[in-house]
Amino acid sequence: MRLDHIAIVVEDIDNAIEVYHTAMGFPLRKTEDVPAENVTVAFLPLGDGSEIELIQPTAPDTGVSKFLAKCGEGIHHICLEVDDIEQAMADYAAKGLRIIEDEPRVGSEGQKYVFVHPKSTHGVLIELYEKPSYE
Amino acid sequence: MRLDHIAIVVEDIDNAIEVYHTAMGFPLRKTEDVPAENVTVAFLPLGDGSEIELIQPTAPDTGVSKFLAKCGEGIHHICLEVDDIEQAMADYAAKGLRIIEDEPRVGSEGQKYVFVHPKSTHGVLIELYEKPSYE
Repeated sequence: MRLDHIAIVVEDIDNAIEVYHTAMGFPLRKTEDVPAENVTVAFLPLGDGSEIELIQPTAPDTGVSKFLAKCGEGIHHICLEVDDIEQAMADYAAKGLRIIEDEPRVGSEGQKYVFVHPKSTHGVLIELYEKPSYE
Repeated sequence: MRLDHIAIVVEDIDNAIEVYHTAMGFPLRKTEDVPAENVTVAFLPLGDGSEIELIQPTAPDTGVSKFLAKCGEGIHHICLEVDDIEQAMADYAAKGLRIIEDEPRVGSEGQKYVFVHPKSTHGVLIELYEKPSYE
């Protein structure tokens, strides 16, 4: 298991890029709109293969926008890369962890991901992520 | 800059170790009591040089115990290692970030650390950390 990213929900991604990139000095790898998830995301590498992801919701009534309205800006989740997401889901469920989805969600580039409920991880929303395969 | 650790505040460190070590499979490097800071800490390496730190407060009226009472379990801060903490403090302050301490705090092993106020970092408490020097 490897830390893939730390996701931070923000009100205004340009302001947040000013802080994390311009002021703090993290490189800015790319910024992209993800209309399918109603977010704009900036990716700032941490130098060890993991990244900070700044996430601004672009529509109301999504999970991310509700989090922002309720909790304010801050860390939303951490993401761990696993080799085999179905295996990880089965192992974790057998050990009492609560996986939110029954099946992995599949992203635009074929990556698979699910979330582990924070009630089963001492308050931390954890994304499990499997790289897309190109077989 | 390098991610040193992600700190998670928990009610009961043994229960949290059951989840993060036994169920999720993170190695458990060590657990230690830090009476000077009124916490017990478990260190679980993430495989890339960074770690998850599970932190249980052991006294009331500390910052960590107040956080737990107010916000519940969850991510408390992230820690970034810097080469020169005084330089980082000066650079960050010049760029408008709010450093909580005027001078670095010094830990039991000579490490220096300060915290950047979450009001200046879009809701994320960020620790800056400089390794102890052994010159």
